[in-house]
Amino acid sequence: MNPKSSPGYDPRTFKALSFHGAASRFRDGTDSPRSYLERCIETIKEREPIVKAFVALNETGARAAADESTARWKGGRPLSAIDGMPIGIKDLLETKDMPTQMGCEAFRGNFPIRDNAAVWALREAGAIILGKTTTAELGGSHPPATTNPFDPARTAGGSSSGSAAAVGARMIPAAIGTQVGGSIIRPAAFCGNVALKPTQGGINRGERQATSMSTHGVHAGCIEDMWQVAIEIAERAGGDRGCMGLFGPRQPPAAHKPGRLIVLETAGWGQLDARSKSTFETLLDSIQRAGIQLLRRADNPLVEKLERTIAEAASICNAITGWENRWYQRNLVNESPGGVSERAKTALAKAEAMTVGDYRAALIDRQAAQACYSAVAPLADAVITLSSPGPAPLWAGDQAGKPLSLRPTGDPVFNFPSSMLFAPSVTMPLMAVQDMPLGAQVMGQSHEDARMTAVARWIMGNLAPVITA
Amino acid sequence: MNPKSSPGYDPRTFKALSFHGAASRFRDGTDSPRSYLERCIETIKEREPIVKAFVALNETGARAAADESTARWKGGRPLSAIDGMPIGIKDLLETKDMPTQMGCEAFRGNFPIRDNAAVWALREAGAIILGKTTTAELGGSHPPATTNPFDPARTAGGSSSGSAAAVGARMIPAAIGTQVGGSIIRPAAFCGNVALKPTQGGINRGERQATSMSTHGVHAGCIEDMWQVAIEIAERAGGDRGCMGLFGPRQPPAAHKPGRLIVLETAGWGQLDARSKSTFETLLDSIQRAGIQLLRRADNPLVEKLERTIAEAASICNAITGWENRWYQRNLVNESPGGVSERAKTALAKAEAMTVGDYRAALIDRQAAQACYSAVAPLADAVITLSSPGPAPLWAGDQAGKPLSLRPTGDPVFNFPSSMLFAPSVTMPLMAVQDMPLGAQVMGQSHEDARMTAVARWIMGNLAPVITA
Repeated sequence: MNPKSSPGYDPRTFKALSFHGAASRFRDGTDSPRSYLERCIETIKEREPIVKAFVALNETGARAAADESTARWKGGRPLSAIDGMPIGIKDLLETKDMPTQMGCEAFRGNFPIRDNAAVWALREAGAIILGKTTTAELGGSHPPATTNPFDPARTAGGSSSGSAAAVGARMIPAAIGTQVGGSIIRPAAFCGNVALKPTQGGINRGERQATSMSTHGVHAGCIEDMWQVAIEIAERAGGDRGCMGLFGPRQPPAAHKPGRLIVLETAGWGQLDARSKSTFETLLDSIQRAGIQLLRRADNPLVEKLERTIAEAASICNAITGWENRWYQRNLVNESPGGVSERAKTALAKAEAMTVGDYRAALIDRQAAQACYSAVAPLADAVITLSSPGPAPLWAGDQAGKPLSLRPTGDPVFNFPSSMLFAPSVTMPLMAVQDMPLGAQVMGQSHEDARMTAVARWIMGNLAPVITA
Repeated sequence: MNPKSSPGYDPRTFKALSFHGAASRFRDGTDSPRSYLERCIETIKEREPIVKAFVALNETGARAAADESTARWKGGRPLSAIDGMPIGIKDLLETKDMPTQMGCEAFRGNFPIRDNAAVWALREAGAIILGKTTTAELGGSHPPATTNPFDPARTAGGSSSGSAAAVGARMIPAAIGTQVGGSIIRPAAFCGNVALKPTQGGINRGERQATSMSTHGVHAGCIEDMWQVAIEIAERAGGDRGCMGLFGPRQPPAAHKPGRLIVLETAGWGQLDARSKSTFETLLDSIQRAGIQLLRRADNPLVEKLERTIAEAASICNAITGWENRWYQRNLVNESPGGVSERAKTALAKAEAMTVGDYRAALIDRQAAQACYSAVAPLADAVITLSSPGPAPLWAGDQAGKPLSLRPTGDPVFNFPSSMLFAPSVTMPLMAVQDMPLGAQVMGQSHEDARMTAVARWIMGNLAPVITA
């Protein structure tokens, strides 16, 4: 194993790539967007053969865009704080200069020559669309070839596999992911990113109107870049159709120390390995020692009620998403029977056994869960929980003749709640277990995206990472 | 002018095509879906050269489907009450067996070989997808070549031009339309249809996730067929993502006599021609004589408040829809500058001058209007208003060198309210002005689709049509 390609993860020494500090150097000419880009391309050349985070790169277009950005910074007229930022776009979103193949054979060669609304907004802000990042097939669970940047024997997570891995491997400072169940927060946590899964509808999905729980979000090396990318998109492209969109300041919100946090176990607690559980409990201890109160299920009946409700999150989310995807996927399978994985076909068969009544019941379950969630709002500043059930699992690919692994990109059990609750979530790389990243997330009420960013910023800025050998 | 092609409209003698009565004849073998289809094709051959309602016909596929349906009826195993019904699909919706060209040069030859969710559901119910009906470009205001079935010098309305005209010309018993501003109710009224624009989200839009106010709906010759088509879709494909979908019985709801109706003037009242206004007032008189109370703006401050709110409906709807369409249309214009009409480009330019703040303000205006609308719910059983500002206007096509007519398919001023309020609306062909149809619509609160259908059924069954020479 090449140590350069799999350095392991030590949060005390790992330095993620950041962009936000470069502005002053772009202004005084000691650095430039073009030089920044070239360093990214250099890292990609070095890491990509093993990490496999990209399905397409547009180096020529990126270099031209970087030169234009360089001129704008020199002239003192950058288009935004992210002018010149190289960024990766999950390959579910359309880009006018690269194909959009969705990790799916049926879309091989698909090239609609259009920009997704968020991609359009990023270009308007001067960001450099460097490449398309890998995705699990159609945003589901059939994985791409991507490996974890800290151990190539492990998954990078999914479905935003390439966005998470490219940021974790320091190839790019930020990338766009999407989440329906756990497709941003989980891979981000597996790869040591910070990431924002915004309030439902917070970022315009453009043509990618997948399901009633799908969101665009941002993977980044640091929280400043995460926020800046999100707000630059939202100010230009707004939120989703009929939604108010992301609210918050044009600069990264200042750190905010919470007074009290609700600790959620979720359905994932029971299946958690002992190391990850004790690592998280150590983090919680250090949060308490910092003077922040913790409220757990035993402390308050409303928290207990919420825990019981979100214990059903997986089945509710899978029912809703399955139903909402079924015509799209049925058409795809009919048109291209060999172009869709067996994993996706299995999910489709389950969805096709549903009735409209089953779907309505799942919607009501979701609404009820949202009501339980609103009820805890006055109790604390935010919710905290793990971002995944332990670090990224090992994954050696499907084995011929063996049954299909159900969760090759890891289990979204800690992620279904924020999706189902339409809640903003920020994952923080605060822990390491056996040289792999382990994340914790803070979740807020709808439209508290900036507030969660501020809380995460305080926690990351004030607590030492917790490391378990 | 060929009298066969433009018979004029007399509601006392005009007999729209219906399907619901055919079932007993299909069972006893005195009629069959294949024979029914052949009669439709015959009418299309006769009327289509002037009416121009279709952009594509699949006669071969329709005949094969009709033969299968004939066998099912003979065997006593129809798939639904609409098994064998020939139906037209607005050319904004994808169909696996015909192109989807959206009335737009940029989509000429576009053929994704997929079924829209509603189309899929119709096939599951045994309906026969006979053809794609014309649409104003991209569902906007640039008109197709379609003419009004009762006078070829007049517009059939839009954007569901072909669906309305094909039903009005007795070519087919029902057709699917879509509405964002007034694209179902207005053309349906111009062409003497009944039609349902359902509660927002009532019918699954499938891939056609246009904007936060777009809906699929049903044009039909009679109210029984209108309801049956809608409910057969909703039971199979459900409502839109995240929505509960259309509620109601599996059979057309029985007629329901309302006790009281709110009469809404809307912003259209001031621009109404004298004949249409007096015709509508005569209809209102006959409603009162039937023992139904009427409540008008002068009678109740909540109605007055609602009138003032919906007076702004056009600007609110245009702002929301413009913003929501702008990335899609910008991509299209960039990719195919000559493939998009000047009318659409003018609308795009207005949308591109908006900020996210402008959009949010329009959303708040819409929410406020919805609150005003909810407030009148306890006052009456339904709202009644005209379906258009008079009968279908004359339209001779764009004239070279002259400024573009803004509203060649008629003014949606009476239709913006139901779209903005997410309200179910049923238009009824109750009046005629100078040999052209004039419609009135009943509007309900969200999810009162079946109730509005029942109220419309009572009104149509109990009031004589009002005719003004």
